This record gives sequence, C-alpha cells and structure tokens, in this order.
Amino acid sequence: MSTGTLYIISAPSGAGKTSLITKLLETLEGAEMAVSHTTRKAREGEIDGKHYHFIDADTFLNGVHNGDFLEHANVFGNHYGTAKKSVDEILNKGVDVILEIDWQGAQQVRDLMPGCLSIFILPPSKEELEKRLRGRGTDSDDVIAKRLGQSVDDIQHYSEFDYVVINDDFDESVETLKSIFIANRTTLERQKLRNKSLLEGLANK
Amino acid sequence: MSTGTLYIISAPSGAGKTSLITKLLETLEGAEMAVSHTTRKAREGEIDGKHYHFIDADTFLNGVHNGDFLEHANVFGNHYGTAKKSVDEILNKGVDVILEIDWQGAQQVRDLMPGCLSIFILPPSKEELEKRLRGRGTDSDDVIAKRLGQSVDDIQHYSEFDYVVINDDFDESVETLKSIFIANRTTLERQKLRNKSLLEGLANK
Repeated sequence: MSTGTLYIISAPSGAGKTSLITKLLETLEGAEMAVSHTTRKAREGEIDGKHYHFIDADTFLNGVHNGDFLEHANVFGNHYGTAKKSVDEILNKGVDVILEIDWQGAQQVRDLMPGCLSIFILPPSKEELEKRLRGRGTDSDDVIAKRLGQSVDDIQHYSEFDYVVINDDFDESVETLKSIFIANRTTLERQKLRNKSLLEGLANK
Repeated sequence: MSTGTLYIISAPSGAGKTSLITKLLETLEGAEMAVSHTTRKAREGEIDGKHYHFIDADTFLNGVHNGDFLEHANVFGNHYGTAKKSVDEILNKGVDVILEIDWQGAQQVRDLMPGCLSIFILPPSKEELEKRLRGRGTDSDDVIAKRLGQSVDDIQHYSEFDYVVINDDFDESVETLKSIFIANRTTLERQKLRNKSLLEGLANK
C-alpha cells in the first residue's frame, strides 16, 4: 500500500503559487512534483521524463480514452495531463506528490483519488492581488481588470479545498505549506503505514 | 464561536513529553497550557491562577459534582482537574489550548470536547525508552522494570490518538508538534472562522 499522499495545490493567478511550491520543494524532503504528459514540443533544455513526458497527440488522446489521466486540459492547442501511473509510482515509494493544477482539474482529481489533500493559496487582499497582477508587466488597465476578474472568479472555489493558505508573508507561507505536509505524515493512519514495525515493537509486551 | 483548538498531549513515561511541550510553547505563538485546579498546597514561587488554581477539597468535589471539570484525577491524595471554563476562556480568545494529561484523561476529554485533537508522543524504540527511564536516577532494576512495564502498558493506547509523534530527535519533534498546530489553523473550517472578513472581501465581485 502506498504511504505517500497526493497534494493538489491550486490558486488564482497572482497568489504566488509557483514561487511557493518551488521554495517548498527546496526545503521539504519526501515530496516531488508529478511529471505531466504533454503534446507540445520540448523547449530547449527540457528533458523528457523530467520536465514533461513528451508524447504525440494520438498517444495522448488514446490515454484519455483509456482513462489513464487523472486530469487533462487543452491550453493554446496543446494537451497537458497527469497520468495516474506517474503519480502512483511516486506515492508507492512513500513520497508525497504535488499536483499544481487549477480548481477545475482539482475537481477531477478529487473524484479519482479520494485520499488526496487539496490546498488553495490566496493573496492577502484584493488590493495586493491587483498590485501583483499589475507587477507582471506593462499591460493595459483593461487587461488587468480582466485578469483580476478571472482571479476573483477562481477565488470563489476556495471552499472546495481542505486547506486555505493566505500568502501574505512569503517565508511564512512556505513554512505553513511545509507544516501541512509534516502534520499529515504524523496522523495515526499515516504512522501505522510509515512506522508499522516500530509501533509494533514498542507495544509488544 | 471559539477559534482556538484544544490539544491533548499524552505520552508514556520516558517519551520526553514535558520537555517537548516546554520548547513548543517557547517557539509557537497562539498556544497556551490550560491552568489546572488542585487541592494541594502551593509550593514556593507558585502563583495562584498561573501555575494552578489552588482550591480546597470541598470546592473541588463540588465542581466535580457539578460537572465543571473536563477531567480530574487523584494523585497522592491531592485532587487535580481541568475546568471546562478555564479551557473555554482561552479558546474563545482564538488561542489554542494544550492539555498535558494521560490517556485515561484523554478519553474523558474526547467525550466532552469532540472538537479536540489528541497527540501521543512515543520514544523511538524500547531500548531508548529503557535508557531514558534509567537515566532518571539510581533506581534498582526492579523499579526500572516496573516503570518500563507501565510505559509499555500506556503505549498500547497510541491508536486512540489523532497524531503519533515519534520523539527520536528532540528539535525535529518540536518542529513536528508545531506543524500539527499550524496545519490545523489553515484547514478550511478554521480559516472560515479565523479569516472570515478577509475571505469574504476576496471573493466579493
């Protein structure tokens, strides 16, 4: 039986999700990102099997047909998806898996992996969210307003998640994310899997 | 409605519980020990209302009769107990409360405070447990064996707890305890209480 836990991490645009996850993976042992499958071409420096599993559209759609993917989406004409097999391989090593997906994908994965835990990251205020969305470049007010509207739409879904992390202070939020992983490794259920022989040895009269 | 969480921390003798809790309280904000009531005399330096609430036996037994105590016990002829009122006062400030009690007390408290979370601390092995029990002084082998037997009896109850922390490395165990508190403050349910207006403001279109 697997001893790792699948974590879904979602956020509206501008919440700081990707930076948080990058830092989290640097400081937390025993957790890995799931490697997605995609039909888009590999960019320079991208390694097949590490950054993505690069496959052609026929293979991808065949996989969708066979139910191989926990979730999949089409972005700008390219398919992206997370294969259940890729996730299970990591979980079976006793390693936690992180899936960085949107709330729509999170809904799909919850149905297929009921043991997963999901985390939603939020900005500390609407003003800060707007500032972060503006900070990205020199976009027009119209573009910013549209992006802000999209983020606020996404935020409506926070109550579908198990945990809500408000990303006010970056380092504190990394610690909070780390705490969620560590705490869940020490639940009775997890400890019975992770430290079976130690527990049996201690309780043995 | 209260926003703090009541934590029960129990352990067999020799697991290192008291040192861990002392260190935890130094490093974790927003958590306090519950102040117990007792019928024993105050020792020098002990402050009424801080270390204990010192009361006489009649008042104590009256409280027991009225159901004022979450748990109580008689140790060497003195009564000790945790008043529900003392705990609720802290919880209502949004502060987490720690109760350091044995597994028997934990059973009583779980019935009366179903929202509580309980943590059991274990030594990393029976050999280490024996070493720690010996380390306490110059007790005879018989006394050590009896104490070890008692600890192993207590260990049987680990599966009644929500979390099991194996105290191998002291600093790591403090971090793990801290993680449990922090993670539980970020569950959806807690965040809806702790950050109600922030969440409403963000989701407001």
